[in-house]
Amino acid sequence: MQIEIIAIGNELLSGFTINTNASFISQALLEAGFLVSRHTVLPDDAERLEQGIKEALQRSDLIITTGGLGPTCDDISRHVVAKLFHSDFRYVPEIAEELQKRFGGNFPTIDDQATIPTKATLLKNTVGTAPGFIFRENDSTLIMLPGIPAEMKVMTMNHVIPYLKNTFGSALRSYGKRLNIFGLPEAAIDPLLRKLKDQHSHINFGIYPSQGTVGVHLTVESTDETEAMELLNPSYLEISKEFANHLFESASGRLEEAVHERFIRNKWTLSAAESCTGGSVAARLTQFPGSSKYFLGSIVAYSNALKTEFLGVPEELLKEKGAVSEEAVRAMLSGLFERTKSDFGIAVSGIAGPSGGTPEKPVGTVWCAVGKRDEETHVWKFIAHGNREMIIDRSVNALLGKLLRISR
Amino acid sequence: MQIEIIAIGNELLSGFTINTNASFISQALLEAGFLVSRHTVLPDDAERLEQGIKEALQRSDLIITTGGLGPTCDDISRHVVAKLFHSDFRYVPEIAEELQKRFGGNFPTIDDQATIPTKATLLKNTVGTAPGFIFRENDSTLIMLPGIPAEMKVMTMNHVIPYLKNTFGSALRSYGKRLNIFGLPEAAIDPLLRKLKDQHSHINFGIYPSQGTVGVHLTVESTDETEAMELLNPSYLEISKEFANHLFESASGRLEEAVHERFIRNKWTLSAAESCTGGSVAARLTQFPGSSKYFLGSIVAYSNALKTEFLGVPEELLKEKGAVSEEAVRAMLSGLFERTKSDFGIAVSGIAGPSGGTPEKPVGTVWCAVGKRDEETHVWKFIAHGNREMIIDRSVNALLGKLLRISR
Repeated sequence: MQIEIIAIGNELLSGFTINTNASFISQALLEAGFLVSRHTVLPDDAERLEQGIKEALQRSDLIITTGGLGPTCDDISRHVVAKLFHSDFRYVPEIAEELQKRFGGNFPTIDDQATIPTKATLLKNTVGTAPGFIFRENDSTLIMLPGIPAEMKVMTMNHVIPYLKNTFGSALRSYGKRLNIFGLPEAAIDPLLRKLKDQHSHINFGIYPSQGTVGVHLTVESTDETEAMELLNPSYLEISKEFANHLFESASGRLEEAVHERFIRNKWTLSAAESCTGGSVAARLTQFPGSSKYFLGSIVAYSNALKTEFLGVPEELLKEKGAVSEEAVRAMLSGLFERTKSDFGIAVSGIAGPSGGTPEKPVGTVWCAVGKRDEETHVWKFIAHGNREMIIDRSVNALLGKLLRISR
Repeated sequence: MQIEIIAIGNELLSGFTINTNASFISQALLEAGFLVSRHTVLPDDAERLEQGIKEALQRSDLIITTGGLGPTCDDISRHVVAKLFHSDFRYVPEIAEELQKRFGGNFPTIDDQATIPTKATLLKNTVGTAPGFIFRENDSTLIMLPGIPAEMKVMTMNHVIPYLKNTFGSALRSYGKRLNIFGLPEAAIDPLLRKLKDQHSHINFGIYPSQGTVGVHLTVESTDETEAMELLNPSYLEISKEFANHLFESASGRLEEAVHERFIRNKWTLSAAESCTGGSVAARLTQFPGSSKYFLGSIVAYSNALKTEFLGVPEELLKEKGAVSEEAVRAMLSGLFERTKSDFGIAVSGIAGPSGGTPEKPVGTVWCAVGKRDEETHVWKFIAHGNREMIIDRSVNALLGKLLRISR
C-alpha cells in the first residue's frame, strides 16, 4: 500500500523549522509494518495545498497531513481538504464546551476550533486545542494531525496507529531488520550486500554510512510478520556473522546508545579527556536520559594550560611532542584515571581544522587513547577526511567504537 | 520562480534519518533571495524516483536533489536523472586520478564515481568522493548534490548559490533581512510585528522561536535588491530600536557565533563548568573554526565527585544545598576562576530530566552563573519546559545570552 506524509507550513519551506514530524510518523508506522513511500512539504497557500493534496490522493491509499489546523488566519488545511472531499462544516457545541473547560474563557477562537467538517471523523487532541480528522472516500484515506510535535506524537500513537492496524491490518505490509556496524567503511560491506541482493531479489538492502558507522537495513513486503522474518533471517544472519566484530546494538543506530546501555548494564563508569572533539563526546553521551548512572564527566581541555592544570600533562611534554601526539593522549588518560574513580577512560587530541595543520600533522590527524583502569591502554592515530564537523564526528565514533570493542 | 528540493533515500522515509538537508538548502537559498516552494522525499527505487522527478520537472523551474550519488548498490539517482535527460555516460580519467590521489588505491568503486553523465556539468566535491551535477534543458534546471550533509553544505555554498545568482539573477526574487533576538518570548515581539504588518502589507513577517532565541525575518518580493532593501529598512530599523538590548549578530542565528566573534575581537578568554548541559556549551562553541583563540575549555563535572575534584566544590555544600543550587553554581564558577586564567566564566547545574525532579526542584530547574574575573557574578534560576534536549538547549542559550549582555 502507498502511504504519504504531507507536512504543511511556510516555516518548513524557509528552512527555519526542520520537518521532524515526518520522521516521527514514519518510524511509528514502520514499527507497525507500514512503510511510507513519500514525504512532501507544502506551503500555507490554498491553491498549492489543494494541488499537492489532490495529486497525493490520486497516487496513494493513505495520506497523513500535519499542520495548518490551528485557529489563525494562515491555518487553511481543514478548508482545503473539506473542499476536496466535498464536505460542509458544522458547529459542535460539545467541543466548544470541552475546550472552555480545559482552557478557560479567554480563548478567542473557540468557535472556530469547534466548527468541523461534516464528513470527517474526529480525532481528539488531549494535549492542545486543534482536533484531528479522518476523511475516507473511494479507497482514499486522509488523516489530518496538528503540526505541534507534542500534540502530533500523542495523537499518532493513540489514534493513528490503532486505526491503521484496524483498517489495513490484512494489507501487504513492510517488515524490516536493521544492523549497525562500526569501524568498517561502506566499501567493505557493500560486496556482501550485492551478493545477497542477487540471491534474494525480494529483499530490499539499504546501506547508510555516517562518519565511521554504517546502518544496514533489510526490508521485505509481506502480509504476514512471521513469514517476513523467515524471509529476512538468512541474509540477516549472514551479515551478522560476517561482521560480528563490528556490530553494535542500538535502536537509534548511534554508538553512544550502545555504550550507554552496556555501561549501565555492567555498572561500569566512564570519564573522558577531550581536546579536538571539544565536548562532543560528553554532549553525545549525555543526550540519553540516565547517563549520569555511568558517565562521570569530561575534562574538555581545549587549551594546553587546561591540559596541564586539570590533567597533569607536563608542560615540557606538550612543548616537545605537541598536544597532538601519542604521549599527550597517554598523559591525558593517565591524568584522568589518577583524578577520577572511573573504570574506563577516553582521551583524544587532534587537529579539527580547517587551520592548524602542518606537513607532519595535517588537518584531520587525531590521536586517541581508550583504556580500562589498570589494564592495557589502546592508543592509535588516524587521519580523518572532511571538514571540521566530520572530523569531530568521526573522532567521537572512533573512540566509542573502540570502547565497545574493549569492554565486551 | 518555482523551486523544489527532492531528498532521495529510504533512510529518510523510514524515519531513521531526519531530512536536515532540505532545511539547510532552503535557508541558504532564502538568504540569496530564492524561496523554495516544495520539499519532497523519494525512495531509492528507480520507478518511483523517475515518476517523482518527472512531476517536479513539469511543475517547477529549478530542482535540487540530495542523495543517491554514492558508489553503492542502492545509489541510483544519477542513472534515473540521466535517463530523464536522455544522457549517456562517459568515463573521465582525470576524476579517477584525482580520487586516487586524494583517497589512495584501496578504493574499489573509483571507476564508478568517475563515470558521469555526458549532458551534465560537473560540480566538484572537495570534501568527499561523489561529484554533483547540473542538468539544464528547456528552461528546466536540475542540480544533484550528495546526501552526506558535510559534502552537501560545502557544495551548496561554493557552487549552487553562485550558480543560481548567476543564472537566475534577474528573476523575481525574495529579499530578506533577519534579526536575532535573545532573552524575550515570542509573545513580547509579536505585537510590534502585527502593527508593522498592518502598515506594510507587501512585507512578509516571519517569527521563529528556538529555545530562548527568536529569529525575525522580513521578506519582500522584488526584481531589484536595492529597491527591496529600501522597502524593508523602515520596519527593520523599528524592530532593531525596540529590542536593541536583546539583539545579537550572527549569520547562522546562533548565539555561539555571536560569542565567538565578540570574544575573538576583544581578545578575551572563556571557560565553562557544566553539569546538566553535559558538554553542550563546549560542543556548540567549538564547532566554529578558530574557537581555540578564546575558548580554554570546559569542566563537564557531571558527577558530584568531579565537581569536588576538579572545581573544588565542597562535598558538604553539595550534600547540604544539592548540586542544583545557587551555592553550587557559585562554587563551580569560583573554582573555575581559581584554576584557569580565563577572563570570563560560565557555570550551570540543573535537572534535564525526565527523571530526577522533586516538588521543590522540578525537572527543568536550572541554576546559572556567569561572570567576568574580579567583577560581579550574575546568578539566576529558571525553569525550562519541554523534554531533555529542549532543557539543555535552552540552558546553553540562557548562559550565552547572559554572556553577551555582560560582555558588551
